[in-house]
Amino acid sequence: MFREKIKVLDCTIRDGGLINSHQFDLRFVREVYKAIAAAGVDYMEIGYKNSRKLFSEKEFGTWKFCDDADILKVIEGVPSKTKISVMVDIGRVDLEDIKPKKDSPVDMIRVASYVKDIDKAIAMVNRFADLGYETTVNIMAITKAIDNELTECFTQLEKECKANVIYIVDSYGALYQETTEYLVKKAKGIIKTKEIGIHTHNNQQLAFANTIEGIIHDVNFVDATVYGMGRGAGNCPLELMLGFLKNPKFDIRPILDLISKEFIPLQSKMEWGYFIPYAIGGILNQHPRAAIALRESDKKENYREFWERSVAVDED
Amino acid sequence: MFREKIKVLDCTIRDGGLINSHQFDLRFVREVYKAIAAAGVDYMEIGYKNSRKLFSEKEFGTWKFCDDADILKVIEGVPSKTKISVMVDIGRVDLEDIKPKKDSPVDMIRVASYVKDIDKAIAMVNRFADLGYETTVNIMAITKAIDNELTECFTQLEKECKANVIYIVDSYGALYQETTEYLVKKAKGIIKTKEIGIHTHNNQQLAFANTIEGIIHDVNFVDATVYGMGRGAGNCPLELMLGFLKNPKFDIRPILDLISKEFIPLQSKMEWGYFIPYAIGGILNQHPRAAIALRESDKKENYREFWERSVAVDED
Repeated sequence: MFREKIKVLDCTIRDGGLINSHQFDLRFVREVYKAIAAAGVDYMEIGYKNSRKLFSEKEFGTWKFCDDADILKVIEGVPSKTKISVMVDIGRVDLEDIKPKKDSPVDMIRVASYVKDIDKAIAMVNRFADLGYETTVNIMAITKAIDNELTECFTQLEKECKANVIYIVDSYGALYQETTEYLVKKAKGIIKTKEIGIHTHNNQQLAFANTIEGIIHDVNFVDATVYGMGRGAGNCPLELMLGFLKNPKFDIRPILDLISKEFIPLQSKMEWGYFIPYAIGGILNQHPRAAIALRESDKKENYREFWERSVAVDED
Repeated sequence: MFREKIKVLDCTIRDGGLINSHQFDLRFVREVYKAIAAAGVDYMEIGYKNSRKLFSEKEFGTWKFCDDADILKVIEGVPSKTKISVMVDIGRVDLEDIKPKKDSPVDMIRVASYVKDIDKAIAMVNRFADLGYETTVNIMAITKAIDNELTECFTQLEKECKANVIYIVDSYGALYQETTEYLVKKAKGIIKTKEIGIHTHNNQQLAFANTIEGIIHDVNFVDATVYGMGRGAGNCPLELMLGFLKNPKFDIRPILDLISKEFIPLQSKMEWGYFIPYAIGGILNQHPRAAIALRESDKKENYREFWERSVAVDED
């Protein structure tokens, strides 16, 4: 028995792009798209729509900018019902880059925002909605939000915002199931006219569990990535999500092939997954940047020192 | 705020021993014991008490047999409040090997049993209880139990059995949180005079989540292993459990050191953790032996074929 309303969004290329400055080549992205489409996944998020005025093409790859022409090269000729999503950050997008939906291969635009920037997010997302896109607001670092400010944020989103979905984003991989339940119930208590989504990180091996917890409490939009690839500890693994969901439209097998052929070799070039510094970041509810820096240094296995330093950050 | 009744049992050497036929050397086991003791973990399970009449010393290492003399070499001279546990399988123990508690360094004996063998388990565990040991019955492969037989099993354990703790064991890593909740509530509804414990496997990255789920529903004995080491996908990682529990008697730092110094190097020699064949076993609720065999073969990344074959096992 399945809940038809549950939609799965694959954000492998977008969140994974945070590991390699979005420099996946076209062949790889097309292989991912083909598998995602064959698996019956509802959406694929392909990258960020960031401004070329702010970010250099020398430093960042194609999927930092997501030109329509590049997206078309990925999707053309592939039989697919999968919709295309791009992500936008507050203050990093050139609004002139966003054409009306009818002129673009993009179906959905997701605006990532901290609670403090929610007014900017609403203004932007309403503009995208008016251009004809499906839209979401993704509330980042929600485990750092102060409860009354989050209440106000949810209230504003319900009243002023045209987004179809409001996402709870566990940027730090700090959520346990009880807090996931609390946040989802809180959101659903205020936001009645939109769906709730969840995007988790796997610092404490709880990304899949927290996504299930969201589903139990009526979250209908869930993010996942192939083999859990994503920044730091990565995300909820798509293959586990497809194994869990009972909707017969999903087929896990193309994703298994994709992992065998593309992601196992990729792991020798890019690091993501369960490593102790990311676990420490999750336990202490901290941004992953310090853990990522440690993993790139020659002290990458100095866990105790990293623990002591991380504890001190909040205590000093 | 913490629940003082929650006891943590480390079974790194016992469950990890299933990967290498229990052939850890004394130095390594002592390093693990020192760290477990320094971390304030309540119990350490060091291996199986199996009969030398049934298993060859050429094939299996020290911790398949757990002679008192070997245990003493591990613990002597180490300041510790950690109790020692050994596991016993139905039909594989020589009962004459079990001395009275007062003559042994062992504190707890855990009897692993399938539902079908519960009468044998009760007879054995009562004998060990009479010898003065703390005792548990660990119900293996509980996701394969038929519900009315499990009811009868719990009822018998409550009425006839002297064990202090009855463990729910997710041998196949097939539990999701909702079923964990169901099984724990079912157990607690019948078993009123003993504690409930949980032992999970990490096939679907849910070992930690299901252990937390147990704790939410009043499980007070939780198994964990250092860096999740254990058969197949491994177990609930001890470091995450200690990060989660708030009891000030626990100290995560000795475990972080132990992982840095001993478990990172060990990973190049022994395989455990999240691999797709184990995930498939968890999704399909199957014994890990086929997945372990695949990982030891030259087809270890042939995931689709393994999926098709595993699905066919239940369908043929």
